[in-house]
Amino acid sequence: MSIDPANVAGVGMIRFGKFPASVTLEHMAAAASREAISDAGAKVTDIDALYVGHVFGGPVAGQRIAVNLGLDGLPITNLENYCASGATAIREAWVALAAGLHDVILVIGVEKMTDRVAGGVKPDPGDLDAAVGYVMAAGHAMSARRYMADHGATREQIASVAVKNHAHSVHNPYAQYQHAISLNDVLSARPIADPLGLLDCSPISDGAAAMILCSSNGLKRLGIAAGSTPRILGCGLVSGSLQLGSDDLNDEDVSRRAGAAAWELSGVGPSEIDFVEMHDCFTIAEIVRMEGLGLIPVGQGGRWTQDGLTSIGGKLPVNPSGGLLSRGHPVGATGVAQACELTWQLRGTAGGRQIESARVGLAYCKGGTVNGTDGGSVTTVVMAQ
Amino acid sequence: MSIDPANVAGVGMIRFGKFPASVTLEHMAAAASREAISDAGAKVTDIDALYVGHVFGGPVAGQRIAVNLGLDGLPITNLENYCASGATAIREAWVALAAGLHDVILVIGVEKMTDRVAGGVKPDPGDLDAAVGYVMAAGHAMSARRYMADHGATREQIASVAVKNHAHSVHNPYAQYQHAISLNDVLSARPIADPLGLLDCSPISDGAAAMILCSSNGLKRLGIAAGSTPRILGCGLVSGSLQLGSDDLNDEDVSRRAGAAAWELSGVGPSEIDFVEMHDCFTIAEIVRMEGLGLIPVGQGGRWTQDGLTSIGGKLPVNPSGGLLSRGHPVGATGVAQACELTWQLRGTAGGRQIESARVGLAYCKGGTVNGTDGGSVTTVVMAQ
Repeated sequence: MSIDPANVAGVGMIRFGKFPASVTLEHMAAAASREAISDAGAKVTDIDALYVGHVFGGPVAGQRIAVNLGLDGLPITNLENYCASGATAIREAWVALAAGLHDVILVIGVEKMTDRVAGGVKPDPGDLDAAVGYVMAAGHAMSARRYMADHGATREQIASVAVKNHAHSVHNPYAQYQHAISLNDVLSARPIADPLGLLDCSPISDGAAAMILCSSNGLKRLGIAAGSTPRILGCGLVSGSLQLGSDDLNDEDVSRRAGAAAWELSGVGPSEIDFVEMHDCFTIAEIVRMEGLGLIPVGQGGRWTQDGLTSIGGKLPVNPSGGLLSRGHPVGATGVAQACELTWQLRGTAGGRQIESARVGLAYCKGGTVNGTDGGSVTTVVMAQ
Repeated sequence: MSIDPANVAGVGMIRFGKFPASVTLEHMAAAASREAISDAGAKVTDIDALYVGHVFGGPVAGQRIAVNLGLDGLPITNLENYCASGATAIREAWVALAAGLHDVILVIGVEKMTDRVAGGVKPDPGDLDAAVGYVMAAGHAMSARRYMADHGATREQIASVAVKNHAHSVHNPYAQYQHAISLNDVLSARPIADPLGLLDCSPISDGAAAMILCSSNGLKRLGIAAGSTPRILGCGLVSGSLQLGSDDLNDEDVSRRAGAAAWELSGVGPSEIDFVEMHDCFTIAEIVRMEGLGLIPVGQGGRWTQDGLTSIGGKLPVNPSGGLLSRGHPVGATGVAQACELTWQLRGTAGGRQIESARVGLAYCKGGTVNGTDGGSVTTVVMAQ
């Protein structure tokens, strides 16, 4: 089963970071949107609809953003799937284009975390796992311990994910962190949940990213030649929960199913993926999720990272943007930022972080409780030039 | 421009009301969903995806609901457009069916307001109009004063909306209030914002409603004959803002445009509408929105109501369910509850509140700030037997 691809006519971002209260969600989103509209050579009047992904922006955030863009009046839809909210907005826009409902859609992912989520994301009051201490960092720490025990992986291998992603984002002008870090920096950072330290964790971030997605009619409206842009071939979305006490914390059933959805919807197989933007909310997560997708053999992810196979120039580059760890993780914005990076890589305009011969890229987000009974969502976006 | 209709295979609700904390959002949504699944003669394994509309349910509410339904694993999308959230979920499901992405979709609208919104919905901290006292009730009170001044309408005519909608919901087993009220009850109720009193305002409510929507392939999967169910012909979605100080508070430009979207997407004209489920968050709102849609001549809505033209048995029945005023208004659930009522009316199974010869119905929701700079969304769902 496949539906029509969506053409990526334009992308835009603001540099992720931590901004004062005067830099509002609305202003960040409008700035990223204007860049995407300009990148597409479009006018605001070309846009048929908005799909906006965010988590903490409050009711009708998309409508408030639209007023800032002079886009009031259009169909506006707010989407939430926790850290996969931005990717979910992309998916719904892709579906609306395929259905023939709209031809030119502005997709926005945005989050102002420093205002709304002071000190970190709090678990839901009804999250019984979190209530007994099983919060995200704890879950990923257990995942790391299990991974090390099962596969003989080392702490250094896991830490090397952070070193690699920081090295990549030195070349990303939109990244929250644009400096390299050493293995020793990661290993000696303040402990968060043993064995993970501060640099194993993605930061609290503010930011926005935007895209102009078009049907073939939409491309014509913007005067863009068919076939000249990257195309979103398919967007997988699955949900699932990992029960506390399950046999294998790192089984990654949701990643496996999200991968299967991506291959089915895009018609692309895993062997055709040239590079990945992976939801590395914690270092270990990049490893187990790549393995869950079947893109790295189970138990090999730590070694691959240490040996540079997932670095730019390696066998299968992962997170050329710097990923969540170093580009930053304004939760609702992340999925759209990943898709922006896919676009730049596929266009060959990624500058110092360009992957050679990048033809097919995959972006992966995971939202919701990571390990727990409440479940979460995984999105997989396949884009090709 | 039109896309394929969605077939309504099943609907379900719980009675709206105010429930203790032990009645959770997840349990309410699961109960309504089970009723819809049963009504469709379906099994949970028939369902391809969930679209969930809510405002205050917190992140990944749909995923938490799915776990309660044994539906974990599916694509789940959470939608938010304030009081139009449920209708927005219907719209996205309609689009996904038309695109061929899914064949059987469970749509849920749900809200647990008494837990999350103690004492009423608070305006956004950034809402400058609300900060100077221009909250929803105040806006609608000004709308009522303006309407009375412009059209010679009486306070009694506006109050008669509440009398009518309560009279209707006497026959609705899902309504929060199932008792009739008198004109004097409305006129003598505690003042809220002059001239509006307590019974001119929709209540704080908890509740859930659900639907099974199908493509033609989906109907086959469920063993339902094509053409035997009501069909959603089109779902309009527009946004807009009414600026404080604009020339005409009751201009209802968004309603006019939402109506135009409905007619265009459904291929149905306003003269073909047999009855309406209207977003009567306040008595006066039902009147000015019906006029904005062009279904009642401007300035006549008060008189029509007083004369019984919008009662069941009248020329154009409005809110046979009791509407937001009397069925209740759990904000994210309202759009789906309206669509459930359209379904029952079109099936001819609405019991004591049945509208004779109901062939085409319209449901209208408005979400976001009602009068203010932030804008909001209006949805229009056209359903026909």
